[in-house]
Amino acid sequence: MRLTVAQARRRLGAAPVARLATVSSADSTARPHIVPVTFAVDGGRIFSAVDAKPKTTRHLKRLRNIQANPWVAVLADHYAADWALLWWVRADGRADILDDPAGMAAPLRLLAQRYPQYVDNPPAGPVISILVERWTGWAASPGG
Amino acid sequence: MRLTVAQARRRLGAAPVARLATVSSADSTARPHIVPVTFAVDGGRIFSAVDAKPKTTRHLKRLRNIQANPWVAVLADHYAADWALLWWVRADGRADILDDPAGMAAPLRLLAQRYPQYVDNPPAGPVISILVERWTGWAASPGG
Repeated sequence: MRLTVAQARRRLGAAPVARLATVSSADSTARPHIVPVTFAVDGGRIFSAVDAKPKTTRHLKRLRNIQANPWVAVLADHYAADWALLWWVRADGRADILDDPAGMAAPLRLLAQRYPQYVDNPPAGPVISILVERWTGWAASPGG
Repeated sequence: MRLTVAQARRRLGAAPVARLATVSSADSTARPHIVPVTFAVDGGRIFSAVDAKPKTTRHLKRLRNIQANPWVAVLADHYAADWALLWWVRADGRADILDDPAGMAAPLRLLAQRYPQYVDNPPAGPVISILVERWTGWAASPGG
């Protein structure tokens, strides 16, 4: 069964982890990239912060991709041996990169509310800010 | 800590669910797409079967994408409130679509070994066959 937009947003917002898919460029070498992310949903936006150490630049592939092609997809899913309990939610949208302290402040507060680890160790950023254009979701059963 | 190729392949192979990222085209309109998938690892290949009902064509977006751009990424990850236990594995590669019964037979057998649901109800296919070019993985701690 398809989920409504409200159901999809609620399920994604309650998931502890999602996956962020980006595209490596907007030309013929376009390749998908995918990483697990912490995140927070705020109405029609999704925020995720880069918390890698500055030196581990390989973690920044997602940022380079967004600079070349802002379209992203975010997925949360639930797996269980009982397939009647399966569900997934996907948000498709356009991403901006926020790296000024003023712009990052509110998203970082939302993230700290969800993840206690961020209270003592706030992510350095930048913050990926996604304006969701479409919410899609599916559940194997109404109670799933 | 980065995982070795062998560690990455072993962890992915043991995960019950992964996420498949594809790209909608190989031009400037390229957008990422991402869905949870059942799958089986066989050496340097990953197989996943389409088990949607023929009428639910929206589930076939992944196939249309692969026809336009064969590059895909597959991700498995583990989330826990204790971030010392986090890990993820990603396989990047090129996908082919198998839709002849002879070509699908071996992958479907592998999938049925992993998922009891497929023993009685084999997926109709097609099968996505991914030749992995790169295994990448990370774990927060050696025991994670």
